Amino acid sequence: MLDDLFSYIDKSVDEYLEELKRLCSIPSVSAKGDHLEEAAHAVASIMDSIGMRTELHETTGAPVLTSWLDVDAKHTLLFYNHYDVQPAEPFDLWETPPFEPDIRNGRIFARGVADNKGDIVSRIWAIKSFLESDKEIPVNIKFVVEGEEEVSSPHLHEFVEKNKEFLRADGGIWEFGGAGIDGIQDAWLGLKGILYVQLELETLSHDAHSAYACYLPSAPYRLIWALNSLKDKTGKVQIDGFYERVRPLSDKEKQALSEIDLREEDLQEFYGITKFLDDMKGDELKEAYYNAPTCNICGIDSGYTGEGSKTVLPAKAMAKIDFRLVEEMDLGDILGKLRHHLDSEGFNDVKIAWHKGYPAAKTPIDHPFVEIVKKSNKAVFGHELRIQPTSPGSGPLYLFKDLVPMVSIGCSDFDSRAHSPNESMPIDNFVLGTKRLVVIMDEMGRW
Amino acid sequence: MLDDLFSYIDKSVDEYLEELKRLCSIPSVSAKGDHLEEAAHAVASIMDSIGMRTELHETTGAPVLTSWLDVDAKHTLLFYNHYDVQPAEPFDLWETPPFEPDIRNGRIFARGVADNKGDIVSRIWAIKSFLESDKEIPVNIKFVVEGEEEVSSPHLHEFVEKNKEFLRADGGIWEFGGAGIDGIQDAWLGLKGILYVQLELETLSHDAHSAYACYLPSAPYRLIWALNSLKDKTGKVQIDGFYERVRPLSDKEKQALSEIDLREEDLQEFYGITKFLDDMKGDELKEAYYNAPTCNICGIDSGYTGEGSKTVLPAKAMAKIDFRLVEEMDLGDILGKLRHHLDSEGFNDVKIAWHKGYPAAKTPIDHPFVEIVKKSNKAVFGHELRIQPTSPGSGPLYLFKDLVPMVSIGCSDFDSRAHSPNESMPIDNFVLGTKRLVVIMDEMGRW
Repeated sequence: MLDDLFSYIDKSVDEYLEELKRLCSIPSVSAKGDHLEEAAHAVASIMDSIGMRTELHETTGAPVLTSWLDVDAKHTLLFYNHYDVQPAEPFDLWETPPFEPDIRNGRIFARGVADNKGDIVSRIWAIKSFLESDKEIPVNIKFVVEGEEEVSSPHLHEFVEKNKEFLRADGGIWEFGGAGIDGIQDAWLGLKGILYVQLELETLSHDAHSAYACYLPSAPYRLIWALNSLKDKTGKVQIDGFYERVRPLSDKEKQALSEIDLREEDLQEFYGITKFLDDMKGDELKEAYYNAPTCNICGIDSGYTGEGSKTVLPAKAMAKIDFRLVEEMDLGDILGKLRHHLDSEGFNDVKIAWHKGYPAAKTPIDHPFVEIVKKSNKAVFGHELRIQPTSPGSGPLYLFKDLVPMVSIGCSDFDSRAHSPNESMPIDNFVLGTKRLVVIMDEMGRW
Repeated sequence: MLDDLFSYIDKSVDEYLEELKRLCSIPSVSAKGDHLEEAAHAVASIMDSIGMRTELHETTGAPVLTSWLDVDAKHTLLFYNHYDVQPAEPFDLWETPPFEPDIRNGRIFARGVADNKGDIVSRIWAIKSFLESDKEIPVNIKFVVEGEEEVSSPHLHEFVEKNKEFLRADGGIWEFGGAGIDGIQDAWLGLKGILYVQLELETLSHDAHSAYACYLPSAPYRLIWALNSLKDKTGKVQIDGFYERVRPLSDKEKQALSEIDLREEDLQEFYGITKFLDDMKGDELKEAYYNAPTCNICGIDSGYTGEGSKTVLPAKAMAKIDFRLVEEMDLGDILGKLRHHLDSEGFNDVKIAWHKGYPAAKTPIDHPFVEIVKKSNKAVFGHELRIQPTSPGSGPLYLFKDLVPMVSIGCSDFDSRAHSPNESMPIDNFVLGTKRLVVIMDEMGRW
């Protein structure tokens, strides 16, 4: 019944790979504020080209793009995506330049291709397949495409507050997703929250000769002592009350988890490790993965870090830290506890220079839309969708919480290296992921 | 009697400032291996131009330049200098570019001008003043100018072993020196040793998305825990046996120190601090300054350190550390204890990627050459030279220990910012320091 559409998709792979290459050539790095408008317009023009209506909504940050196709259907499907990408550093670890997309070994390589420009193109492609086949689209379509997801979506709430009616839908597909290490397709129903902070410290008015370490305070050492006090060697956060709002997993969630195999050995091989943090295994590892908040150093910098040696006592030191938060944990509460912790440990000179983030959220496991996605996945991929109650990653899902039941699926796989050098997407999944969307739309027409 | 020479010096200031500017325009950064041969040849050509003989000695590192003028005098004066400089980073803190020398407010600004290219030129200038005044030079002159002092002189020992006879002299002037915070000229008779190490750690085969901090080991955090274990918040090194070879100060040294005022308040104002490390004061501060080994972080780097945020779990982390050593402490011994410490704290994955350094050394306080320098200083500067039994800084003095009694004096002052942005030398001291050398040579002729 959907053969015409599948046939169109199979014939037009090269065309959409070219479209994707063009989009991935734009270095829309939100951390640097680079090329964001350009990327928004590029996405809008693809949507325009297939007859969708588009609108750019200003925020105090990057604009939010909406696009829609109202076919007066009973149900509405909403896509959430973002046109920004992570920074590509360190550049020298890329086999081909991050913003010059390259196809090799059945994959397409570029910064942002897996997270999430490949999925933007896949979603448009799925809609196009209905139009090309003269088959009526069975659902109303809406897109929300923001430009600051990779910097914690600091302005999306402005858009959401003004456009709640637009956002109401019967089903929602979150920005990206894909197959796990075993090739099985995952659906993520929740996302952890995030609190990203930059800690800064200045102990001297200027760098000093390192000989004076005998009597001058050291910025990097004070920062190290402060960071050391935040987390012990088992990974346990030492901030007083940090875990106080963490709820245990529900029975339904535990049931879902019992069907999940984290494939510990494969993960270890992938990361080149022989054991996990604190030598965790089995249920303890699952508990950490699905229900533990974290404290992670994304970057630390002080003094001379070039080649060879420089004997300097640095005046300044800086660290970038992200805390992943689980449901019920509150941003302001954790930020206050961090400040209190630093002060009580004697580090009131360690400044929280800036912070941003958002809380965690989950879609109920038993929502009928989740069933539609499961059924569609089985039809295309031939195996059962693996339901993940939440992802260890973050996204501003909380903003959509009472408006649309979101499920995160997409065209990536375990080797896609989102946020890392040599990010890529398998072309097979690009095709199958697009077909799965076609089936979801078809199923929603008969819901 | 030396009026002609002083008059020549006063008339030729601009000429030698130009010479100094040319030398400081060469970015001879030994940490990067940049422009070293060029700087060696530039120094040699100045020496050639005043009729000295020069020779470049190959080592497995940068070449060592020697230069001499044998006038068949009874005594010989040796100068030790270096043609390399520290890296100039961070460039953005310089008011004028580090390798485009600038004169303002009675000072000359450039990387390396205080440490120690100004003193190289001053020493040649002093010799020239005898030649220009048709006055016979009263001492034989020798120069040893190496090119790797700022990276701990890893190859100077090769030269010294082969050229011990050349190095024997009745008095030696060490690379640089100058006035303290109170404007009083200092003479440094000793130097601490140094052990510089680069610690490196790799916990994953590639960077991961920071969401996986829930189960993956963190390179920056492991490095932080390791560095935290090396030193406590009072500055005390926690490596077992680290202090075991540290001898208390001798009575003569204590006597010299009792005449020294560290001018704590001025120092604090200069560095923009309200208290020293561990709130040290008075004798405790002097003890740290003259007799404490240190453990200092010169640089630390891991993950994303650019603008804004990137959510990454870095696979690698690196720290550059220098230990300052006092007499009797042995490089290999401390290195072994560091390795043992890291292993016993569970950080056998923290590698000592490379190390280098040398031990401490001192010239006896009561050597007659020290008396000549004191007398000459009084004649030119009008105040008593302050004798510092040792400097908190380092240099390969140990290589010269039984060959020549070295005294470290020069043209800098307390605001010279060696190793830091906006390094400079006061032009007044450039002139007076040169005249002091003339008197020292004259005094050595009557020794």
